[in-house]
Amino acid sequence: MNRQELIDQIRLKSSFLCVGLDTDIRKIPKHLLNSEDPIFEFNKAIIDATHEFCIAYKPNIAFYEAEGPKGWESLKKTLDYIPKNHFTIADAKRGDIGNTSGLYARAFFEKLDFDSITVAPYMGSDSVTPFLEYKNKWVILLALTSNTGSSDFQRLTVTGTGQQIYESVITTSMGWASHEQMMYVVGATRADALSDIRKIIPNHFLLVPGVGAQGGSLEEVCKYGMIDDIGLLVNSTRGIIYASSEKDFDSRAGEEAHKIQQSMKKLMEKYG
Amino acid sequence: MNRQELIDQIRLKSSFLCVGLDTDIRKIPKHLLNSEDPIFEFNKAIIDATHEFCIAYKPNIAFYEAEGPKGWESLKKTLDYIPKNHFTIADAKRGDIGNTSGLYARAFFEKLDFDSITVAPYMGSDSVTPFLEYKNKWVILLALTSNTGSSDFQRLTVTGTGQQIYESVITTSMGWASHEQMMYVVGATRADALSDIRKIIPNHFLLVPGVGAQGGSLEEVCKYGMIDDIGLLVNSTRGIIYASSEKDFDSRAGEEAHKIQQSMKKLMEKYG
Repeated sequence: MNRQELIDQIRLKSSFLCVGLDTDIRKIPKHLLNSEDPIFEFNKAIIDATHEFCIAYKPNIAFYEAEGPKGWESLKKTLDYIPKNHFTIADAKRGDIGNTSGLYARAFFEKLDFDSITVAPYMGSDSVTPFLEYKNKWVILLALTSNTGSSDFQRLTVTGTGQQIYESVITTSMGWASHEQMMYVVGATRADALSDIRKIIPNHFLLVPGVGAQGGSLEEVCKYGMIDDIGLLVNSTRGIIYASSEKDFDSRAGEEAHKIQQSMKKLMEKYG
Repeated sequence: MNRQELIDQIRLKSSFLCVGLDTDIRKIPKHLLNSEDPIFEFNKAIIDATHEFCIAYKPNIAFYEAEGPKGWESLKKTLDYIPKNHFTIADAKRGDIGNTSGLYARAFFEKLDFDSITVAPYMGSDSVTPFLEYKNKWVILLALTSNTGSSDFQRLTVTGTGQQIYESVITTSMGWASHEQMMYVVGATRADALSDIRKIIPNHFLLVPGVGAQGGSLEEVCKYGMIDDIGLLVNSTRGIIYASSEKDFDSRAGEEAHKIQQSMKKLMEKYG
């Protein structure tokens, strides 16, 4: 999916919601555990209930990898089930030396047909560029993450430029691809940093986790991060997929996604 | 495997060689492609030919992930086949927010029974500590990698401390675990940095890739990096596993591993 198609979907649905499919076998409703593939059955029901209200799905790969080979089968079935007008994100945070990153690209862009993958920047240019060799596929590079550990290294200040590390990551990586192929992860718990980030990258899409359970404010994210082309994919996971642990988990997930979509519609009118 | 057991193996074999099992289906000898699991058959033959001369094996997970679910089956069979007196490294370079890193730990330390995993430091403490909750399991944290992109961020200087980022990573993460549970990746192509690193961490083991095909010098690595307890796991991949692309690939791999072991024996006498 290219940038214009993504913007079109956002306008059509008045939503920039990404639903995280972090499906933990230990947390899904008990009645699903007897099915042949409980993780896929859970995801299928969540997708059925939420697809009208969101424009993207983001399975975090750790949850599938933790299940061994059958986890990868569940992931593939899930990806195949997601309607084609949704943007798909492999939240994998991969990154290795050049030839090896090329194999991760093959795993997520060829064996699986994800639109995008999250990539860790620590190893620099040749760990990221192999993912950029695929047409209409995106790299979503970690910049300023939503967790407490993000202060350990990402916010250190670099001598000479005066930039923080996450700003260096953005500034340097801007040379590797345009905003038609690169996005950045910026946690909602760091909304105060969004104005600074928008000075560096006024046109890039940002993937924003951390709204909801992690405490980030959707209004703040839109106030400081939204651009004319919206430029935001805001992720919510636990608040939606674990809204209920009973048989009504899917209808409750749909209700929560609908609520967020309604808020997003208003915020698009206000800031978009 | 704990630190003393690892040192004992190194002394016993006069070797600190780690063999990288980066098994690419497109590069293995043609005659293996008709077998049911060519990747495992290749690894099995390589392990048979090299196990006397090395003390560790390091499959890079990208090569298995690129093959989909059956790649994970090949990985599991390979891990089960590695003799128990060898230290095993999942070269996965994972790292995510706390609860998610916990799932990666489950994937590599429970579903699979690796001794250690390589972890990317960008997301900070809570992305690393879940891997440290397993007794006798190791984190091998990326510090200064062997690729060209390592200059992009790892060598930036931090305001205040005057340290480079990779030194900050080492200094900060030393507080998360002792040298009984933490190692660092330092590329052989950066041997000049090893003396500085040894001032910060005189006792830690280092995993050193980049000798051989990538141009690093084994002698330099030992000169600047070896300690009384040796403290080095030097990895070689392509020079060993792809020494020949013909039917003699395994015996040639054994010869190359033996040659490196002989060099290591001399260097242990000189610097150990």
